[in-house]
Amino acid sequence: MQLLKERILKEGRVLPGSIIKVDGFLNHQVDIGLMQEVGKEFRRLFPQKEINKILTVEASGIALAALTALEFKVPMVFAKKAKSDNIEGGLYQCEIFSYTYKKKVTLLLSKDWLKPEDNILIIDDFLANGEALSGLINIVEQSGATLYGVGIALEKGFQKGGAMLRAKGVNLKSLAIIDEADEHAIRFRE
Amino acid sequence: MQLLKERILKEGRVLPGSIIKVDGFLNHQVDIGLMQEVGKEFRRLFPQKEINKILTVEASGIALAALTALEFKVPMVFAKKAKSDNIEGGLYQCEIFSYTYKKKVTLLLSKDWLKPEDNILIIDDFLANGEALSGLINIVEQSGATLYGVGIALEKGFQKGGAMLRAKGVNLKSLAIIDEADEHAIRFRE
Repeated sequence: MQLLKERILKEGRVLPGSIIKVDGFLNHQVDIGLMQEVGKEFRRLFPQKEINKILTVEASGIALAALTALEFKVPMVFAKKAKSDNIEGGLYQCEIFSYTYKKKVTLLLSKDWLKPEDNILIIDDFLANGEALSGLINIVEQSGATLYGVGIALEKGFQKGGAMLRAKGVNLKSLAIIDEADEHAIRFRE
Repeated sequence: MQLLKERILKEGRVLPGSIIKVDGFLNHQVDIGLMQEVGKEFRRLFPQKEINKILTVEASGIALAALTALEFKVPMVFAKKAKSDNIEGGLYQCEIFSYTYKKKVTLLLSKDWLKPEDNILIIDDFLANGEALSGLINIVEQSGATLYGVGIALEKGFQKGGAMLRAKGVNLKSLAIIDEADEHAIRFRE
């Protein structure tokens, strides 16, 4: 998606360790007009009329997922990250490793809001190692719902998540894939 | 706001301790069409053209704040809740007590995204004791930005937050204020 790539080139910053900061428009301050365009692009890329729910995980995926759900005219549901060992019943759970927090966290989703008859599109802002997405996919499998696809705004193509999910046969579409990033330049996959 | 009140009456559940569960349309699964209507209502209630940014706090406020920002045609920024003691520089910080997690958490917001010239509308889904909102207001004060108002979807009028903020002179508007809730009925303030 040209509009997103141009914005990344214009305002993204690369920190040591190929950390890509896009927190002025994607995941801390959020450009809602841009997210609306991203939502329209996901609607174009995933035209299946059966999709009846958008799934994401807190926190930075929520704004993008909400604007995407607006285009699909369906509800959005977000998995929570457990902050305590005191987890109530009636929840799908999946433990993942969080590279952000450098520890295990548990994704939680109420069984009330994901059912076998649901047709799910997962939306997230970032894909790097794919831990959070694998957790969401695991929760969809637990529920018996059907996964129609995964839409990502920005994929770090030099980390393992994208290749792993595509090898599994997931219908993954990323609007911008960065194959190389250092202090000199950001290079997108063609 | 009649539409929101009707939805609360239809789908809200009251658990022991006057806990109001609205997680089917407001803060776990989210009815995006309803959030769009809520955003339009906030635009009507806060018509000031100077408002140039919507501020909220992760996680459950983000969807509502995003749809509100869409109506205002301005960016949205969300404060993060610190999960570790390892907090980087360049951040506004405010420690609050979280009744959800029953411990202190620190709200964080990058200084890049809140400036003295900003005119802020705070949006959140829930107001109970007012801890998170007081933290957000404190961060706005730290930044030197101007607070134009606070818009809330659902206020628990029998807890102290609303009265405390109004006594402080905050321009607080809640779309539904519940004064009493038990297993028999939910009573809204007129």
